[in-house]
Amino acid sequence: MKEKISINKLFLCIAFGSIMAVSVNYTDAPIKGWYILSVFVSVILSFILKAAPMSISVLCGLFCLSFCGIIDLKEGLNAYANSTVWLVLAAFILASSIINSNLGKRIALFLIRIFGNTPLGLAYSICLTELILAPVVPSNTARGGGIIAPIVNSLSNSLNSKADINPNKIGAFLILVGSHANLITSAMFLTAMAANPLMAEGIKNILGIDFNWAIWALGAIVPGIISLALLPLLIYYLQKPQISSPINSKQIVVEEMKKIGETSYSEKIIGVILIFLFLLWTSKSFHGIGTTEVAWSGVLFMLILKAENWKNVLNNHIAWDTFIWLGGLLSLSVLMAKYGIIEWLVSNIRNVSISSNELIVLLIIAILYFYSMYLFSMLTAHITAIAFPLMATALYFDANPMITACLFAYFSCLCGCLSNYSTGPIIVYFGLGYVDNKKWYKTGFIVSIYHLFIWIVIGLLWWKTIGWW
Amino acid sequence: MKEKISINKLFLCIAFGSIMAVSVNYTDAPIKGWYILSVFVSVILSFILKAAPMSISVLCGLFCLSFCGIIDLKEGLNAYANSTVWLVLAAFILASSIINSNLGKRIALFLIRIFGNTPLGLAYSICLTELILAPVVPSNTARGGGIIAPIVNSLSNSLNSKADINPNKIGAFLILVGSHANLITSAMFLTAMAANPLMAEGIKNILGIDFNWAIWALGAIVPGIISLALLPLLIYYLQKPQISSPINSKQIVVEEMKKIGETSYSEKIIGVILIFLFLLWTSKSFHGIGTTEVAWSGVLFMLILKAENWKNVLNNHIAWDTFIWLGGLLSLSVLMAKYGIIEWLVSNIRNVSISSNELIVLLIIAILYFYSMYLFSMLTAHITAIAFPLMATALYFDANPMITACLFAYFSCLCGCLSNYSTGPIIVYFGLGYVDNKKWYKTGFIVSIYHLFIWIVIGLLWWKTIGWW
Repeated sequence: MKEKISINKLFLCIAFGSIMAVSVNYTDAPIKGWYILSVFVSVILSFILKAAPMSISVLCGLFCLSFCGIIDLKEGLNAYANSTVWLVLAAFILASSIINSNLGKRIALFLIRIFGNTPLGLAYSICLTELILAPVVPSNTARGGGIIAPIVNSLSNSLNSKADINPNKIGAFLILVGSHANLITSAMFLTAMAANPLMAEGIKNILGIDFNWAIWALGAIVPGIISLALLPLLIYYLQKPQISSPINSKQIVVEEMKKIGETSYSEKIIGVILIFLFLLWTSKSFHGIGTTEVAWSGVLFMLILKAENWKNVLNNHIAWDTFIWLGGLLSLSVLMAKYGIIEWLVSNIRNVSISSNELIVLLIIAILYFYSMYLFSMLTAHITAIAFPLMATALYFDANPMITACLFAYFSCLCGCLSNYSTGPIIVYFGLGYVDNKKWYKTGFIVSIYHLFIWIVIGLLWWKTIGWW
Repeated sequence: MKEKISINKLFLCIAFGSIMAVSVNYTDAPIKGWYILSVFVSVILSFILKAAPMSISVLCGLFCLSFCGIIDLKEGLNAYANSTVWLVLAAFILASSIINSNLGKRIALFLIRIFGNTPLGLAYSICLTELILAPVVPSNTARGGGIIAPIVNSLSNSLNSKADINPNKIGAFLILVGSHANLITSAMFLTAMAANPLMAEGIKNILGIDFNWAIWALGAIVPGIISLALLPLLIYYLQKPQISSPINSKQIVVEEMKKIGETSYSEKIIGVILIFLFLLWTSKSFHGIGTTEVAWSGVLFMLILKAENWKNVLNNHIAWDTFIWLGGLLSLSVLMAKYGIIEWLVSNIRNVSISSNELIVLLIIAILYFYSMYLFSMLTAHITAIAFPLMATALYFDANPMITACLFAYFSCLCGCLSNYSTGPIIVYFGLGYVDNKKWYKTGFIVSIYHLFIWIVIGLLWWKTIGWW
């Protein structure tokens, strides 16, 4: 939700889109599709240049298409009735209620008391908290930025490591563990990150695979657990904490617990609802009730049982902002597919022959997808903008659909490791100031190699073992 | 946006809906349609009982249907992609920008300076302001409650008439004129009240008439102007102000003008945009660009030209709240039509024979529609809940579709005169405290007779003159 509008940058985006649109005669692309692509490219360009709040860019694109009679307004607004967009809305509402209720914080403190006697123990407490909360806190920003980062910060402060005094004593280590653990757990569950359902929808539409909650988790469980288990060791090596004596975590926890007080009514209700959501999400194959319906029933029960109130929901600006830009962007994506421009783009790559081995082609495309995240300021925008055309391209080169689905689904979150602006929790963790720019990028790059190694090598072995290729 | 949730009342609504649903076997109604009707009735019941915020009731209804597998979620969310719902969203955004810019206030003060030398002159200034703003301020709450009511209040205060001291000196008179004038101008233009486009959509779907901006205004212009012109006289008779000497309105205006300062950048930009919106809305038959596209282009230009900012839009809780409940309620309406329950309901009235004259039948139904507003706490809810089935019924009795459209379209706003809770501006005007409960209802009832007389007698003559029947 950047507030600034830069007329110059906006003009640049519009000019680029307009030139692209008027050059329709020089291509053999489907005309409507080409116009929609032009608008889409301008919108993505405005994201990259930060020309305007994302919602404004997206709505300008949509209403421009409809104003010029290229599409029906009904078509343009279509994705606002899409269940995935509504799942994301529910995710933001649930997430903010979980933050406000202190339930997540209580779980984290509980684990810290048990394991947090050494720096590595603290790091593992953080990873474990992430792993426990990930399936039921469907926004990684809420989980990492809202629940865990503040705890990591006050832990470090209690140990005399602050952003300006002794950041490297332990703060920098915990911050790096927290932020990268968040991305790993985000990759592991369909309901661990707000844009994951969008990915699942893309996989269904393009690859024809029902990549549901259980499938998503099954594919991720082995590489996910391994990369989460080894992460503290890797970061320990890259950013060694300077504490040697045992840590008196019990005292710290007691102090923090005092702040949040007794378990409240809201906390209990939300805890019970989250358990139900988890059970219903994991057992979808038995009852067939959709992920969105389950999420919203959770939201509505929270509201009816007064564990949350509607005014807070209306106050959740990020939820509404995301609803608007995500719905519009998804509409544009759907329209591009509908008017044949994706097909046209993919078929134009036929002349490019990278390799005859379809697995190598897939890996090249997937790695390209991974590192293109440097260009984007938001995981969700990265997914909506380029994941689907790249998946279609991989499919065109006869890549195995299931492996394509896995790589794209998991890489979509993991690639957030690259920069310090990739997603909400990363911005929060980086913003705490323990780790400087250079260190962040260097660590991020090393972690990216680590991810690629684990998720490609161990991933492929695991997916072979369970018979997915 | 009532905040309270009453578990008891909610339980009553759910119980009623459940009993209705399980008694499906005792009717020959289409099964799915009957279930949807049961949910719809529970939702409307919860509106009437104020069991929960409207959005929560509507979402509970929708997700209950989808959770139970009666409808697809996609179907349930369908209306969120509906252009009318998006027009309403734009209306709320535009309206709040107009309030914040002080443009409306400046126009009102300008007119008061010219005409406001007597109580009746002040009343006519108010009516004229309403008439000028109505076509371009697409929310009657913004116009009446946000722009004009505060001016009326400070005018009365300047004339030593306050809610607790001398309310009848002039305050009560101006308050009653302002509130009833607001409802008349709301009825006159498609873009004068947020729910009018919804009415137009219903007319299109049920009566097959494109009741667009120009048609709407053409049908309303004669009865509208007459009822607006005579209104101050009627109220003067009912609530005579006790001021006899001429009013020094110039001094009051100068003081008020000082408060709002020089014409600001936002005010100028918004003024220009409103003129363009007006021109584009009225000329739809030439260019064919939809009302919603025009409204949104206005919103987006305001944002891009920085006359408004996105953060304020996200802060516009009423807009988001209305978007959620209106979209859901419209989805339910559409589903009832789709699954044949409306048709079934209407065909069941065949045994009831009121009169053999289709005009008399139509008038009876329309007057029934008018007075049923006593039951509802919001004009929009009244429309969504019962206007469409009643229109379908009128059509079934061979009523003239065009006259049916006129009566329902205009009555939908006019019927707000009945109570002191019917719509936003009425709540605001009543809330100022100049007029007590009893006086409000008495005046409201007399005004309702006045409306019925003018809009039926003069209305029918006018519609005959322009060849509509």
